[in-house]
Amino acid sequence: MDGKILNGAERVEREDTFRAHDPAQNATVAPDFPVATIADVAEACRRAAATSDAFREIDPEQRARFLEIVADKIDALGDALVQRAMLESGLPHARLTGERSRTTGQLRLFATVLRGGRWAGVTLDSPLPDRAPPRADLRQRRIALGPVAVFGASNFPLAFSTAGGDTASALAAGCPVVVKGHPAHPGTSAMVAAAVHDAIIECGLPEGVFSLLQGPSNDLGAALVADPRIQAVGFTGSRAGGLALVEIARARSQPIPVYAEMSSVNPVLLFPHALANRGVALGEGYVGSLTLGSGQFCTNPGVVLALAGAELDAFLAAAATALEKAQPQVMLTAGIHAAYDRGVVALFNHAAVECVASGATGTGCNRGQASLFVTDGAAFVAHPELAHEVFGAASIVVRCESIAQVATILESMEGQLTATLQLDEGDHAAALSLMPLLERKAGRILANGWPTGVEVSYAMVHGGPFPATSDSRTTSVGAAAIERFLRPVCYQDIPDALLPRALQDANPLDLPRLRDGKPDE
Amino acid sequence: MDGKILNGAERVEREDTFRAHDPAQNATVAPDFPVATIADVAEACRRAAATSDAFREIDPEQRARFLEIVADKIDALGDALVQRAMLESGLPHARLTGERSRTTGQLRLFATVLRGGRWAGVTLDSPLPDRAPPRADLRQRRIALGPVAVFGASNFPLAFSTAGGDTASALAAGCPVVVKGHPAHPGTSAMVAAAVHDAIIECGLPEGVFSLLQGPSNDLGAALVADPRIQAVGFTGSRAGGLALVEIARARSQPIPVYAEMSSVNPVLLFPHALANRGVALGEGYVGSLTLGSGQFCTNPGVVLALAGAELDAFLAAAATALEKAQPQVMLTAGIHAAYDRGVVALFNHAAVECVASGATGTGCNRGQASLFVTDGAAFVAHPELAHEVFGAASIVVRCESIAQVATILESMEGQLTATLQLDEGDHAAALSLMPLLERKAGRILANGWPTGVEVSYAMVHGGPFPATSDSRTTSVGAAAIERFLRPVCYQDIPDALLPRALQDANPLDLPRLRDGKPDE
Repeated sequence: MDGKILNGAERVEREDTFRAHDPAQNATVAPDFPVATIADVAEACRRAAATSDAFREIDPEQRARFLEIVADKIDALGDALVQRAMLESGLPHARLTGERSRTTGQLRLFATVLRGGRWAGVTLDSPLPDRAPPRADLRQRRIALGPVAVFGASNFPLAFSTAGGDTASALAAGCPVVVKGHPAHPGTSAMVAAAVHDAIIECGLPEGVFSLLQGPSNDLGAALVADPRIQAVGFTGSRAGGLALVEIARARSQPIPVYAEMSSVNPVLLFPHALANRGVALGEGYVGSLTLGSGQFCTNPGVVLALAGAELDAFLAAAATALEKAQPQVMLTAGIHAAYDRGVVALFNHAAVECVASGATGTGCNRGQASLFVTDGAAFVAHPELAHEVFGAASIVVRCESIAQVATILESMEGQLTATLQLDEGDHAAALSLMPLLERKAGRILANGWPTGVEVSYAMVHGGPFPATSDSRTTSVGAAAIERFLRPVCYQDIPDALLPRALQDANPLDLPRLRDGKPDE
Repeated sequence: MDGKILNGAERVEREDTFRAHDPAQNATVAPDFPVATIADVAEACRRAAATSDAFREIDPEQRARFLEIVADKIDALGDALVQRAMLESGLPHARLTGERSRTTGQLRLFATVLRGGRWAGVTLDSPLPDRAPPRADLRQRRIALGPVAVFGASNFPLAFSTAGGDTASALAAGCPVVVKGHPAHPGTSAMVAAAVHDAIIECGLPEGVFSLLQGPSNDLGAALVADPRIQAVGFTGSRAGGLALVEIARARSQPIPVYAEMSSVNPVLLFPHALANRGVALGEGYVGSLTLGSGQFCTNPGVVLALAGAELDAFLAAAATALEKAQPQVMLTAGIHAAYDRGVVALFNHAAVECVASGATGTGCNRGQASLFVTDGAAFVAHPELAHEVFGAASIVVRCESIAQVATILESMEGQLTATLQLDEGDHAAALSLMPLLERKAGRILANGWPTGVEVSYAMVHGGPFPATSDSRTTSVGAAAIERFLRPVCYQDIPDALLPRALQDANPLDLPRLRDGKPDE
């Protein structure tokens, strides 16, 4: 981490500089990072575009090795990376060590995805020369969209930032990436970017494959999304931030897709039998999920729906007891902490809401005090603001009159990343009646667990209807994330010598193919 | 065709009525069609939403049979349908008979796609209970987005209209469809809608699966796209029309995807060896493609790029001779004919453009006179308006200085549905150098054919970068069109009894599955 902008392979100085803040001390920390200029944005995009056609056509195996070497180089940064990320984010050591594993794991997953070959979507239609009219030889594959802008996320300085899931999936697809680092963790971003650049050099790839731009102003990101060479955007963050990027992308002379993962309150449904059978354990588990990482997860359980009654009261009592023991943790930034406090105060002062418990208070800067609220179903529907995300360890339990009211509440809610069911066998009929509605509302439905913790795998969907994301047809986590950065192209009667290798008769890349709609064995 | 609105299964009368126009006579023709009201739009959307959850979960085999029965019912309309479409569109009998085959063929293709099962995208991750932390049981499938608005296209009264490709793919995905019929062919739309309704009744499906709304005003379509129950939009038509729908969809409190196929000039590249070896045949073939259906195809060859010289002159001479023999054909509507004439006059008066030939003139209303223009490469780049679509049988040949200039011109052009290469073996090196650029610019690249004629098959891409379409990641023709109307949902540790059949252990729908990223045999 030498504090220099990484624009392509170039390390440069700029007149303006900025520093990271240590949220635990409310103090700036060295070194100075040069603030990228608008000219730097254009230069990074120019370099990305210049290498784009070549990068998307290198052997998939070469891209797979590149991703693996990036992972190795990140591992090789050792504890220094974790220490810097701790300093800049306030997150604890174990959490960041886990996040690093997740980051390198997803780079390696995309290497496996590339080797599997299904990402290329090779589909062949046999020519039918004797049909009237004859059918041409038609071949389809998917190609990379072109340079991608990725925005680092405050709450995952590794896994959703410089070489996080958006970057890994875009590079896997064959798209050069220009990262706008999150200003909360410039040192972490610079260290990871240096690892990516070392991997680029080791693999002999062109420098324009990856750039990192840093600076505290939103203008930098706005200029990046507006640059005509950028062809798609990956973003994880606030609803306001995501929608601002969507608007910039739309207003371009060539609009481009924005994959923004924005906000979610992740409803948890406690069904009657589960509540009766294990209410205390559920209360404790819920608070564990709620307060994990000071609640700074996209999948934090912000709303609980359950039938009013003694069983729910027992759950609430157990949750309150657990919550009151929850130690306040440093939040990611002073701004996030201030916004959390404002959100909690608004709930505290809300006429239709009662505060059930608060976490322990503590000394030190930017500590988030966990908060548990309760309301009833009619009030929750009547006050849509109660369904808005408060980013942090605050949650609201809704006392419902009936499963029908639970359905009414869910129907009134916006799209969600997750919906969680706590249920026992006696609850199956009630749960079954809600499944179609849950499918319409959420990207992931889980039973008898908690929504925090998002597996990086083939079947994962970290997405969901608006405003959970700006594009419900996609996921930002898991193997399918690569599909966001690909588009199909059809080749009709193109001579073999002119076809991309993915489509040549001899199948030199050994890709799986469909022929006439069936696997081509 | 009884002239009644088909809203769900209901046939009703409305105070306002409108009639079709016969473009060949510039005269209105009976019967009166009731104009749908804004309340009718809301009612159609309400019915669609009411059946949406159920329709998406019926057996895929049942949806496949439904599509086949729709195809059978359209066939059973016999020549009466073709005659009515002729009257309303001015298109000839053979063309409409072929278009009817295409329409029923694509309904039957989607039945086959449904039976193939890959559309459901079933992906399973095996649980890893002994891993630390344990991995849950994760299962992904794709579900229908919900009610879809489809806009009938003027230039394909059957294949891109009431039961055309958008409707067929949306129904196949499990989405109820509300069609806004194109006002140029209300009788054709009503006849096809009646066939769909007969199929709904025969299959015992709920009425809300399909509705047709008719009327001459754009307000109807605007209200449809704005209705909160609509979850996606399919459109084929003008750039202005498509962008207007995109804007309405974006401004909703829940933005939705719009699949608009808008405009394209479909560049044709004549490479030197091909031009030298068969310039005359190419000139004749080009004019055949240009004047087909009065040039009213999305894939009409509007721009030809070739190196200046005697070979190109021979091509132009042959094209001019062929074009001068081209008989004027009735265009689809008086408005389309007027817009075509305006476009031709603008080219005629353009200082940098020369008119090489005009087709035969003739008597009768709304006849489109084919027109062939020529310019040079520098002028084409200097005047971007020359690359704008003139919908109809007008085309411009660009005399280029070099292959490098061809590349410069292509780079300056917007996204295209197609790019066509006329080449012989000696041209391969030059063509190969342009392939990456062509892939970036077009959805389909074809060799030694003409872009008109879009096969309905697995590998087809009828799409391309903006403004060819509003979403380059998709196709509106071919099997992959179904993917536009699906989104992934992940199920984590959901008990088998609560899982959708697509994901249950016993695989009762017998769908192909991936397990841990590999085909599950």
